[in-house]
Amino acid sequence: MIHLASRGLRRVAAVGKGQCSRQFALTVDQLPAAIREAEYAVRGAIVIRAGEIDAQLKAGTGNFPFEATVPCNIGNPQAVGAKPLTFHRQVLSILTNPSLLDDKALDFPEDVKARAKTYMESFEKFGAYSHSKGVAHFREEIAKFITRRDGAHLKAGDPESLFLTNGASDAVKYVLTMLISSPDDAVLVPIPQYPLYSASIRMLSGHFLGYYLDEESGWSTSAATIKDTIAKYRKDHPNGRVRGLVVINPGNPTGQIMDEKDMEEVVELCEKEGIVLLADEVYQENQYTAKPWKSFRKVALEKKSNVEMFSFHSVSKGFYGECGIRGGYTEAMNIDPDVLDQLYKMASMSLCSNTLGQATMASIVNPPVEGDASFPLYKEERDTVLSGLKRKAELVTKRLNEFPGVSCQVVEGAMYAFPKIQMPQKAIDAAEAKGQAPDFMYCWEMLEATGVVVVPGSGFAQKSGTFHYRTTILPDEAKLPAVLDRMQDFHIEFLAKYT
Amino acid sequence: MIHLASRGLRRVAAVGKGQCSRQFALTVDQLPAAIREAEYAVRGAIVIRAGEIDAQLKAGTGNFPFEATVPCNIGNPQAVGAKPLTFHRQVLSILTNPSLLDDKALDFPEDVKARAKTYMESFEKFGAYSHSKGVAHFREEIAKFITRRDGAHLKAGDPESLFLTNGASDAVKYVLTMLISSPDDAVLVPIPQYPLYSASIRMLSGHFLGYYLDEESGWSTSAATIKDTIAKYRKDHPNGRVRGLVVINPGNPTGQIMDEKDMEEVVELCEKEGIVLLADEVYQENQYTAKPWKSFRKVALEKKSNVEMFSFHSVSKGFYGECGIRGGYTEAMNIDPDVLDQLYKMASMSLCSNTLGQATMASIVNPPVEGDASFPLYKEERDTVLSGLKRKAELVTKRLNEFPGVSCQVVEGAMYAFPKIQMPQKAIDAAEAKGQAPDFMYCWEMLEATGVVVVPGSGFAQKSGTFHYRTTILPDEAKLPAVLDRMQDFHIEFLAKYT
Repeated sequence: MIHLASRGLRRVAAVGKGQCSRQFALTVDQLPAAIREAEYAVRGAIVIRAGEIDAQLKAGTGNFPFEATVPCNIGNPQAVGAKPLTFHRQVLSILTNPSLLDDKALDFPEDVKARAKTYMESFEKFGAYSHSKGVAHFREEIAKFITRRDGAHLKAGDPESLFLTNGASDAVKYVLTMLISSPDDAVLVPIPQYPLYSASIRMLSGHFLGYYLDEESGWSTSAATIKDTIAKYRKDHPNGRVRGLVVINPGNPTGQIMDEKDMEEVVELCEKEGIVLLADEVYQENQYTAKPWKSFRKVALEKKSNVEMFSFHSVSKGFYGECGIRGGYTEAMNIDPDVLDQLYKMASMSLCSNTLGQATMASIVNPPVEGDASFPLYKEERDTVLSGLKRKAELVTKRLNEFPGVSCQVVEGAMYAFPKIQMPQKAIDAAEAKGQAPDFMYCWEMLEATGVVVVPGSGFAQKSGTFHYRTTILPDEAKLPAVLDRMQDFHIEFLAKYT
Repeated sequence: MIHLASRGLRRVAAVGKGQCSRQFALTVDQLPAAIREAEYAVRGAIVIRAGEIDAQLKAGTGNFPFEATVPCNIGNPQAVGAKPLTFHRQVLSILTNPSLLDDKALDFPEDVKARAKTYMESFEKFGAYSHSKGVAHFREEIAKFITRRDGAHLKAGDPESLFLTNGASDAVKYVLTMLISSPDDAVLVPIPQYPLYSASIRMLSGHFLGYYLDEESGWSTSAATIKDTIAKYRKDHPNGRVRGLVVINPGNPTGQIMDEKDMEEVVELCEKEGIVLLADEVYQENQYTAKPWKSFRKVALEKKSNVEMFSFHSVSKGFYGECGIRGGYTEAMNIDPDVLDQLYKMASMSLCSNTLGQATMASIVNPPVEGDASFPLYKEERDTVLSGLKRKAELVTKRLNEFPGVSCQVVEGAMYAFPKIQMPQKAIDAAEAKGQAPDFMYCWEMLEATGVVVVPGSGFAQKSGTFHYRTTILPDEAKLPAVLDRMQDFHIEFLAKYT
């Protein structure tokens, strides 16, 4: 690759030996640094390599010691065998094709038909743009869910404070966009974190201000640590402003459920410091231990806090796992109405989120209840998924802790384990020689040896000198023990190779 | 509203007489200027006022000389009575609920079932995240459509150059994000333009560089005008770089179809200057005169041009009008593969666009053909919509030109008319006294008098001293003459009031 100076715009790329070269006006070095430097490991180099392996396996070329890759890199339940819940999908099929209602032979339960009719009365045409915040009736259903979830004795959910989006990702990006005006504007993000945050903050040219979770106490959040992080930032950046604080509860990639006392301290800290709280609660239905999950909204309301907060939820996780539908929302609490007007303006630039995702979001938080025709099947499907996830969370925690030199905190929630590897010095040296992060090398070698696709801890950020990876707990329960066997065999071989 | 200096972060908002005041950490004046200053008139103040009127009409309060508002502010066909095409919706209903295939009583045509099966074989679970570019099979179908559309004698469409997105808006934003690194990076945009461009460029802190279309020659595009605009920009901005050039064809808000010769000159100019061409072709199926539409891709390939180009298409417009589904794509041509890798990385941060939108995009460009069971109904539905739009385009053009002091170029394509109003000086003075743009005042008064919601020309940008508005041609054909009557009556009264 040769760089030319002409107008600072052109690059000559040698297309291949003996081929003519091709000049491009738009080259990578012309892109904003924010794009070039943003990283997104969940779909990074290892996942791309897994795709190549899949293609070779499918074509019958390549020689691998396994028959198929196992995608444990992403919380994508339906890609690894999960079935969608019948009720929501029956409703969706009517919304996409209302003539199904006229088909007398169609034996959908009455509550499915009634639900679909209600949705179509409130929003006649799903092929039309909706209000930029989302269909009013859907926002009302979600507001009622929030009231039920947090307790009717507290402030009721407010449809006007809800913005429906294409998955929670878009909502997170909107809020971060509002918080970052300059490179000195910092957003506190837990380490380890979900890389949507680091990538988006980088894209917005803001300051990613990591605060460490404490691994040994089950990835707990400490307000004291956060305070120290803020103090250090302000000292080092006289013009620095701390604009937001992200919490991910249940944790991604770490799988913990936050203690209520820690949550209270975070709320108090944000209120006192004038920091906007971003509560990523998309895994709120994924709880596997006796430790209960509680919303940040509820904690704030019980404390009578005026903390300014956006919380996020999604159709992608929980026991419904409708990732591909792209439904999500953010709820604003204690946010200046004028600021919400600006958020509305931003949302209106994309006109609206997809209407079927909006309907799915409303339906998922308003499922059949006892007495409804669909309830028995719904309950069975839900309980099957949740009990399976619980058993898998326990199995993955137990098995990973049996690997020599591996420790893994209890998977209390979400869909992930984040084990720590005692990396042999020889492996660290070998990785350095290759210009790779040691955990990246570990995950790469695991993929080549086992077909299991996981994401290196360095993709999520981790305490310097520690090495982790994130694996989902999602593979089919019947196959999971064999997957863990392969991971264990690889691990032992890796240790032997590098010790 | 009182501004306090404490940490530069807090505002005191008086909540109401006698109530305590409320401090917010996050206030509008703390948001990035790019957000505050971005404008999006298509859902701006007049549309918000229309919403208030609707609410009052519904509640039986308020006193208006009409029974309902008529939304002519947005190209949203299904919101004003258009019906979705049966074939695509039948396919969608199976994709959302595959058990419909097992229902022997279900009398969907065989080609519907076959299509749905093909889609489900290529992508088993629509509730799973897809590849970040979109499902490979859908990209293959779209690539074949592109080959058919532009001619098989030219280069075939390439699935790897396609990125499926939530409507074309997201695709446009991705590309603009890549082009703008600094406030001196300019993107050429036609005046008048669709405000997605001005708003997005403002949000990215880039330079909106308008080039004028020539109204008198049917809103034609002139390469000479663009060259002058570039020369002036470079003279005024020594560090300025012209990074992209947007064309909207058929035109929005202007409704013209570009001449092939003008297109050739634009392609040549972009190639010569190293400017990336952004071809917004979402209205490509909306053609109402003998003047044929041709893709920029075809023009470039026929010229054997190496112009670097992104073109955009969508499920929202044409005769399908599936706005709410949010399906769209961008096709990259002659773009550096390394740049496409960066685009892929950006797309992967949101994981994927909604999978039902992806399927709809593929289905819409691959409709039933002669001999398929669904073809007769499909053809009838398509022809009904297109012939209706053609008649409405002609009627709107004719009628607007009959209004005294109004001229309107022929609506050759898209879904809009953009009439010019000879604004009386007294109206200009009255608007100035109110701090309003004269065309804003005109549209506001039209809404209050008639219920018809249109968007002032100032929301799209227009030549200084000229005044326009954009109206869709979408109202129901039976009602359209009466809507035009009301607009005409208002116009005459407006002239009388201000002359």
